[in-house]
Amino acid sequence: MTTESGETAPDEASGADDADDTEEYADLGATTADAMAIAETSMDRVRELVPDETLADRIRQKSVHATGDPEFQHLVRFTGERADEPVVAGARAVRAERPIVTDITMVKAGITGRGHDCPVRKAIGNGSELAERTGMTRTAASVLELDREGVYDDAVAVVGNAPTAALALADCIEDGTRPAVVVATPVGFVKAAESRQRLREVAASHGVPAITNVGRRGGSGLAAGLTNELVHVASDARDGTVQLP
Amino acid sequence: MTTESGETAPDEASGADDADDTEEYADLGATTADAMAIAETSMDRVRELVPDETLADRIRQKSVHATGDPEFQHLVRFTGERADEPVVAGARAVRAERPIVTDITMVKAGITGRGHDCPVRKAIGNGSELAERTGMTRTAASVLELDREGVYDDAVAVVGNAPTAALALADCIEDGTRPAVVVATPVGFVKAAESRQRLREVAASHGVPAITNVGRRGGSGLAAGLTNELVHVASDARDGTVQLP
Repeated sequence: MTTESGETAPDEASGADDADDTEEYADLGATTADAMAIAETSMDRVRELVPDETLADRIRQKSVHATGDPEFQHLVRFTGERADEPVVAGARAVRAERPIVTDITMVKAGITGRGHDCPVRKAIGNGSELAERTGMTRTAASVLELDREGVYDDAVAVVGNAPTAALALADCIEDGTRPAVVVATPVGFVKAAESRQRLREVAASHGVPAITNVGRRGGSGLAAGLTNELVHVASDARDGTVQLP
Repeated sequence: MTTESGETAPDEASGADDADDTEEYADLGATTADAMAIAETSMDRVRELVPDETLADRIRQKSVHATGDPEFQHLVRFTGERADEPVVAGARAVRAERPIVTDITMVKAGITGRGHDCPVRKAIGNGSELAERTGMTRTAASVLELDREGVYDDAVAVVGNAPTAALALADCIEDGTRPAVVVATPVGFVKAAESRQRLREVAASHGVPAITNVGRRGGSGLAAGLTNELVHVASDARDGTVQLP
């Protein structure tokens, strides 16, 4: 009940397969009676388990919703002057229709198509020549290649899968790139926690707001879910139910 | 480091976006020096934490790899006469080039394009009229619609996201549908654990091998990872490094 997929953003090549995505089931974009009942009950359960006071709490709630684990709320980290800062920055970027740039296809497929007009791009598929020449991972090379094109400046930069993409993004920030917000939750036993730690340090040094987690867990579903929550906060700001400071 | 995405199966409509997927980074399909080093180290770490004796152990290992959590090995359930049975059934289905059918786009995006010639389909996008008429979720309606077309018989049926899709699949099995194997790991607080429990009961009653988990956790990345491990077992059987009984 936790990931949402939606239509491909307008600037993406769109085949028959992509068109189908507009039919996608989505928790908070639920469109049928059953789906809406389940989504409502599910978030009610989460709100019993996670505080519901701040914008950062909404991200904590979503992390619990996406992982199915109440303990995950304690693993989320917010880089900024206040915990709300990356949430506000992300919602503002969504309202400004800035690109949402994911590391891999699976994360892109999890980004909702409703409630925003941001182009949604993935890094993977770019920079293959660089990867072949250097031996670096294709995701890392793809991040460096998109960065060279200026794609990450003022973007919502999302890393759900590849620690090397997170490390590459950290390098880009050190070199002057300024995403509007970073959402990074790569999972695994090798470099995942370390890559998020490095992103937090670099983001803090250079004033880039970031939402990450500690520990080995994480993944594509979590990254997509947290990014979708930024979209929901932006929608609530548009409706006037949330005030962005 | 845990999810893999690959090229779209040959029978799918393939736009420019899909073509990019052949570039996808993938842990065990890693193609650059860095990616291969990380994938190898990562699986070495997992093998220190999970037994490495049976085919079922390979699925347990993959669950730990996909979730980043050593404890997850104890949450996987195998429905069949022996724990290996659903793994063998899945690998045989992959070798027979049977369709891999996922619930949503995100899970489909996580299925590796390497090491198999199975068509990869998603349910979502079908059955929208049924959903509108009945109020059931779009994913549930999409499973029922594909089942009406006979798509699930002898297929690798994968549910990563939607409990209602898992429940619909259980109904189809009760009504006579016989997937080669079911992989079901929907996540969440409402109906997720219950839907897997019902799938296990129905699968056991009707002799359908199944790989599921207990508890609230799970998700698209896990479902894709476990399905990819069936592909890897099939590849190993083809190479002669694994014997399918």
